[in-house]
Amino acid sequence: MTEVIAKENPNYFLRNAWYVVALSSEVDTQALFSRTVMNEPIVLLRGASGQISALQDRCPHRFAPLSLGKRKGDNIECIYHALEFNAVGECIHNPHGNQRVPGACAVKRYATVEQDGFIWLWMGEPEQAQLALVPNNSLYTEQPETAVGHVYMYNRCSYDLIIDNVMDLSHVDHLHGPLINTAGKLSEQIPKVSEPDDNRVHIRWDWIADPAMLLLREHLPRPEDKADQFVEVTWQAPSHMHLCVGAVQDSPHFHRDGAVLYDFHTVTPETESTTHYFFASSRNYLLGDGDYNRAKMAGMTEAFTQEDKPVIEAQFKNMQGRGFWELKPVVLSSDAGGLRVRRVFERMLKAEQAPVEGGV
Amino acid sequence: MTEVIAKENPNYFLRNAWYVVALSSEVDTQALFSRTVMNEPIVLLRGASGQISALQDRCPHRFAPLSLGKRKGDNIECIYHALEFNAVGECIHNPHGNQRVPGACAVKRYATVEQDGFIWLWMGEPEQAQLALVPNNSLYTEQPETAVGHVYMYNRCSYDLIIDNVMDLSHVDHLHGPLINTAGKLSEQIPKVSEPDDNRVHIRWDWIADPAMLLLREHLPRPEDKADQFVEVTWQAPSHMHLCVGAVQDSPHFHRDGAVLYDFHTVTPETESTTHYFFASSRNYLLGDGDYNRAKMAGMTEAFTQEDKPVIEAQFKNMQGRGFWELKPVVLSSDAGGLRVRRVFERMLKAEQAPVEGGV
Amino acid sequence: MTEVIAKENPNYFLRNAWYVVALSSEVDTQALFSRTVMNEPIVLLRGASGQISALQDRCPHRFAPLSLGKRKGDNIECIYHALEFNAVGECIHNPHGNQRVPGACAVKRYATVEQDGFIWLWMGEPEQAQLALVPNNSLYTEQPETAVGHVYMYNRCSYDLIIDNVMDLSHVDHLHGPLINTAGKLSEQIPKVSEPDDNRVHIRWDWIADPAMLLLREHLPRPEDKADQFVEVTWQAPSHMHLCVGAVQDSPHFHRDGAVLYDFHTVTPETESTTHYFFASSRNYLLGDGDYNRAKMAGMTEAFTQEDKPVIEAQFKNMQGRGFWELKPVVLSSDAGGLRVRRVFERMLKAEQAPVEGGV
Repeated sequence: MTEVIAKENPNYFLRNAWYVVALSSEVDTQALFSRTVMNEPIVLLRGASGQISALQDRCPHRFAPLSLGKRKGDNIECIYHALEFNAVGECIHNPHGNQRVPGACAVKRYATVEQDGFIWLWMGEPEQAQLALVPNNSLYTEQPETAVGHVYMYNRCSYDLIIDNVMDLSHVDHLHGPLINTAGKLSEQIPKVSEPDDNRVHIRWDWIADPAMLLLREHLPRPEDKADQFVEVTWQAPSHMHLCVGAVQDSPHFHRDGAVLYDFHTVTPETESTTHYFFASSRNYLLGDGDYNRAKMAGMTEAFTQEDKPVIEAQFKNMQGRGFWELKPVVLSSDAGGLRVRRVFERMLKAEQAPVEGGV
Repeated sequence: MTEVIAKENPNYFLRNAWYVVALSSEVDTQALFSRTVMNEPIVLLRGASGQISALQDRCPHRFAPLSLGKRKGDNIECIYHALEFNAVGECIHNPHGNQRVPGACAVKRYATVEQDGFIWLWMGEPEQAQLALVPNNSLYTEQPETAVGHVYMYNRCSYDLIIDNVMDLSHVDHLHGPLINTAGKLSEQIPKVSEPDDNRVHIRWDWIADPAMLLLREHLPRPEDKADQFVEVTWQAPSHMHLCVGAVQDSPHFHRDGAVLYDFHTVTPETESTTHYFFASSRNYLLGDGDYNRAKMAGMTEAFTQEDKPVIEAQFKNMQGRGFWELKPVVLSSDAGGLRVRRVFERMLKAEQAPVEGGV
Repeated sequence: MTEVIAKENPNYFLRNAWYVVALSSEVDTQALFSRTVMNEPIVLLRGASGQISALQDRCPHRFAPLSLGKRKGDNIECIYHALEFNAVGECIHNPHGNQRVPGACAVKRYATVEQDGFIWLWMGEPEQAQLALVPNNSLYTEQPETAVGHVYMYNRCSYDLIIDNVMDLSHVDHLHGPLINTAGKLSEQIPKVSEPDDNRVHIRWDWIADPAMLLLREHLPRPEDKADQFVEVTWQAPSHMHLCVGAVQDSPHFHRDGAVLYDFHTVTPETESTTHYFFASSRNYLLGDGDYNRAKMAGMTEAFTQEDKPVIEAQFKNMQGRGFWELKPVVLSSDAGGLRVRRVFERMLKAEQAPVEGGV
């Protein structure tokens, strides 16, 4: 069977929003870093002062990727004819003829913010970028290094399917191996869904586990005994998900007395058919244990790449380029969160793409 | 050059017909077996009693392939959220929330018949499946195991080109190596073509060989002498071909006194550009010789994969996605059978796709 | 990211023109040689007398590539059903039935000329092929073998981008390594552009180098001193470029007293997205030195494949199937030659595709 490629459809993406374009650790002060978002090739450059620039990765002269070029300090010289662009995308040197820089000689710059181990990109007009909308992940910055990890993964599917995956954690009951398996406890309940505000959807499951999830069990007083457990996910438009998974015994205070995992998952469309997936993870126990941290990060990455990813990519391929609603999906109680997200997202998309009143 | 992919065109296929979807030996009682027919992903399951089920290989909830799921006895549990489907495609367990199974929660089932070493699939509505239309290949069942073989091959071409290939065996004069080469004897005659009934086309060549085809020669009284030979093919809609190749000396009775090969070839469209090819083969000599049987099956498979397949795939690629008639093919006398098949097939396709009288 | 494939668009090509289809050395008297030009598969055959035939590489019967067939002297027998075609594309033998050759049984032949180490193909009607339009490269024939080289390279880009590359040699200042780098001397001047006639564009740069280009330096009296240098390119429709690069000291006569390289570059579209690139090269020094010749040819080939090709292919991919003008390229002084070529080419294309006066 041929690989499925969804048709290019710019109307499918919310542009006035922040997306993670790279892990902070992916972009150094020496190289140029290239990544495509919503079909737009983007070059990232970290200046000597550490500041990030994000520019259209296409020289306006003959369309060579600037990411193939040379760094000139904090500027980029195009590999092909040596036009030089500064960190805001202005051409500041043209070695040709009278050396005058043509008026239109500039590349689009994107607003960026670096925060909490991620480089955030605003896909709308840079002037309209709202710093207040960057998701707060200060938790991952405040923790010691030995208790934090950041991961990047590439996926051959549309990004909405990964949001569905995280919003409906009932799949952990069935799809995942013993380390994080929840043994049917999520599926059997009706999760609580709410909308804390206009661009957020919250979903939560609570249950009594006997014993607790394997990953958390050993960090409880009596590993083999019953424990209270919960999972909650807060989606924040357009594609960010804050997760929390906890277990506790003999106390109502998960975060203080129990073992809790904190995760941030976010997806960024490369194209309609391919997705960048980033996550950060931390916890409230063994904060100084770097070996445990490495093993935990490796285990989580493997759970996704070995268990979720093959199924989601097969799901996307099985959709054969057709839309989600077109395929008339059967709705289960566990879909409550994911469907609420789709509704909020579609409302925002419609608003963004509506003709401006009084405009043309 | 880029790989040629014909556009998806459901009108190209005859649906109210039986197709081979798998060899019996491909589907066991432990695993789940996946194959795509006419762009539809299908999962095959063999129940404990040996019974075959064929279901749409796409969960109606989130479209994961059921073939990635777990067997629960004769049922399939979806890998993603554990909906369980029985052998007729009904969802019989939903572990979510109140566990009620939503009304629409079912997958399409396909009518199947297992017969003569093949699993047959009806692509139209299962209620309309007509058992009488399954081609009769009881010959291959009645022979001892040491005289029968079944083979599956995958091809990057449209399926009509393989039908043409088998209906015009004059190519054996030119394309094939010494084992089965017919040295110009088919091309030089005008084959006899007839239509035994509405959905069958028969073609036959008779000739005097000097000596007989290498593969048969040694099974005649005087291998190096002249022999009477014949080949006949009966196409049966939509894509089944019964072959017979015989040589005899000093007798008018090929089947009783000569050496005869019996073949059944059938093709099933995976997509407009890719084809499943199955064949079964037997003979009327050395019936108990398993070593000969293995060598003969290997030789026939190699003849197709080394000689026919590269040419047919190159032919398809060379057509660059254009239709057979659009390319204005030159007609030779040997095409009589293949063209008759195209005419019958096109008539059946037109009839199937005609609006029902009195209908909407 | 997915590979970019431009849509098939026959209006993009100038047909009434000569293109190089192969190096003379690629086509021998034993084999059949296949190459696609403007989406048309073509088979080349060199007859016993050395004469080249170019035929449509698609049998009119069932569309198998004739290049898979057998040579019968200077004819081709189709591999599939043994129709035999002579060197002008007529079917001269049909082994089927009454052996009459059907009227329409012929393949298109293309006019060809073999000259100066290349096989030239006329893509329009053969009757209209004008020998006078074949570019003159007798220089490469007149030189001793130890001073001439011919190369073929395959590129995943549209052919116009390679014409741009050669017409704007200011890129040599920036893109290329020390062997041929020109250290900014081309970019800093306004090249002289002219149109010697209706289907030619000439561009020339002159400068004082200190010292000369590394490749030429050692062939001057005082390698480390200043030298006069020039580069000129003459584009000839549709896609042929004659280059000359020279350095001289103490004389106004580059060709007599200096070191000069002579190059012929030409590109032939395989499809809208892929390009055949051929070049020939010679010089006016060390004419008898075969080792130098081999090293020089290898160095030039490596310069293109390691330095130009990756950038041009990335440029093409970055254009994402959109047209050159659609992307609103910024114009620099060095583009003068390339843009003039685009204008002449577009004028010729418009003329060729204009409805004939008084015609239908």
